[in-house]
Amino acid sequence: MSERYDIAIIGSGPAGLSAAINAKIRNKSIIVFGNEDFSNKLMRAPKVDNYLGFYGVTGKDLKDKFKEHISSMDINIIYEKINNVYALGEYFTLMVADKSYEAKKVILSTGIEFSKPLKGEEKFLGRGASYCATCDAPLYKNKTVAIVGYNEESQKEANFLSEIANKVYYIPMYKCKYDLLDTIEIVEDKPIEIVGNLKVEKLILKEREIEAEGIFILKDSVPPSELVPGLEMEEGHIKVNRDMLTNIPGCFAAGDCTGKPYQYMKAAGEGQIAALSAVSELDNK
Amino acid sequence: MSERYDIAIIGSGPAGLSAAINAKIRNKSIIVFGNEDFSNKLMRAPKVDNYLGFYGVTGKDLKDKFKEHISSMDINIIYEKINNVYALGEYFTLMVADKSYEAKKVILSTGIEFSKPLKGEEKFLGRGASYCATCDAPLYKNKTVAIVGYNEESQKEANFLSEIANKVYYIPMYKCKYDLLDTIEIVEDKPIEIVGNLKVEKLILKEREIEAEGIFILKDSVPPSELVPGLEMEEGHIKVNRDMLTNIPGCFAAGDCTGKPYQYMKAAGEGQIAALSAVSELDNK
Repeated sequence: MSERYDIAIIGSGPAGLSAAINAKIRNKSIIVFGNEDFSNKLMRAPKVDNYLGFYGVTGKDLKDKFKEHISSMDINIIYEKINNVYALGEYFTLMVADKSYEAKKVILSTGIEFSKPLKGEEKFLGRGASYCATCDAPLYKNKTVAIVGYNEESQKEANFLSEIANKVYYIPMYKCKYDLLDTIEIVEDKPIEIVGNLKVEKLILKEREIEAEGIFILKDSVPPSELVPGLEMEEGHIKVNRDMLTNIPGCFAAGDCTGKPYQYMKAAGEGQIAALSAVSELDNK
Repeated sequence: MSERYDIAIIGSGPAGLSAAINAKIRNKSIIVFGNEDFSNKLMRAPKVDNYLGFYGVTGKDLKDKFKEHISSMDINIIYEKINNVYALGEYFTLMVADKSYEAKKVILSTGIEFSKPLKGEEKFLGRGASYCATCDAPLYKNKTVAIVGYNEESQKEANFLSEIANKVYYIPMYKCKYDLLDTIEIVEDKPIEIVGNLKVEKLILKEREIEAEGIFILKDSVPPSELVPGLEMEEGHIKVNRDMLTNIPGCFAAGDCTGKPYQYMKAAGEGQIAALSAVSELDNK
């Protein structure tokens, strides 16, 4: 059986990192899922003046300071994408591509996805549309799939899918050098709508249409309500109380995913509250 | 007529400073009331590890970083103590000793007072017990008063009172060299209870009793509900919603005064939210 962590933190932006340092100081065993740059949003910020203690820094400067902080505390980030979180009463199971983790408490700090869903995306979710290539790949053995990739990491999933599917179209929603297998067809076009009858039939783009049985939409973060079944949302954000507790016992949330303002300091403050609330629940057991 | 500020911030701890930088970045005119050390609590912290971006620093290091930040942004702290805030509909009046300020929005970041009230303190408030020497001094002309002082600043108020009252006893609740006028009698003893009939009659200490018509209790911060008449409290804290709005329109709160955890990062995050909520109300007018 795998180790059961006290607290699993999903997301490595300011909310997740703040949660991590606070939980660690309180001697809890933690596991933090995120990416090397911590937060794409942070890395792209040209100038940050409103994080108290640092004036006139770039997002990258701030990221380096955060890195220093968590390294000093021996906190590591696991570069794996959580596809699903299941609340099993006493603990949670966190699913990644080919394995799972267990934790007594979960803190969601997944950020906010600014890109609007495609027309038809929500309608066909689970009926040919998917947010997780590694989860649903087996369903598309020898079939045709289209991947709308919002970041470089999507390429890995595309390469993985291309080994199972018959034909893979890749529609990049960003600019960079592609690192894709030769069998994948890159389509530089703007996706407009997913259409079909009972199931997905095709992806309509600005310039052309692609017939496909599966359409994967791979963004920085999975919508929280898809990530955690049963999670209560409120106007597009995770509903939390002042302790940052969601409607699911033992499951907390912090940062942009809980609502505006979308700011680092607010996120870090909420991460701290979420961690200390989780610690308090663990200590009262 | 005095200038009417967009936002008045009461308190210069992490919550107040974070509110200040955010409001200033949004081009609002602000006035910040606090003290030179920003926060006594912060100054006394031997080690802070959980303020994301700074590891293994002292409270003083952090204070210096905060100072650098607000100085870079030309934010000044006014070293005056607000005794009352009156909500007058379109704006607020903030009372200090001998003058007043006006602001369209108010952010309370007054921290939390850890010392418990004396027995009888709340009962006799307004009937001989007072939190504000400069407000109530005229009532004690030629009378006897006792001052329970929780910090060095209380000495100034004691000296001021001694020029009006007939006799002043000063009971210091801290250790330091005293800078008091000769006419003031220093009593190094532990206050236990305020007693009287309809009005204050005496202060009972561990070793002796002092007959007095007025008893002043001078702490780092006035209880918020005394500061702002009508402010709704909840279990000893200012009740706020997720936008950090109190029950009084235009009046926000942030930091320790709004509840646990009593932490810098949480306070700074809330200060940011309070400021941006106030800014949003100002911009929508």
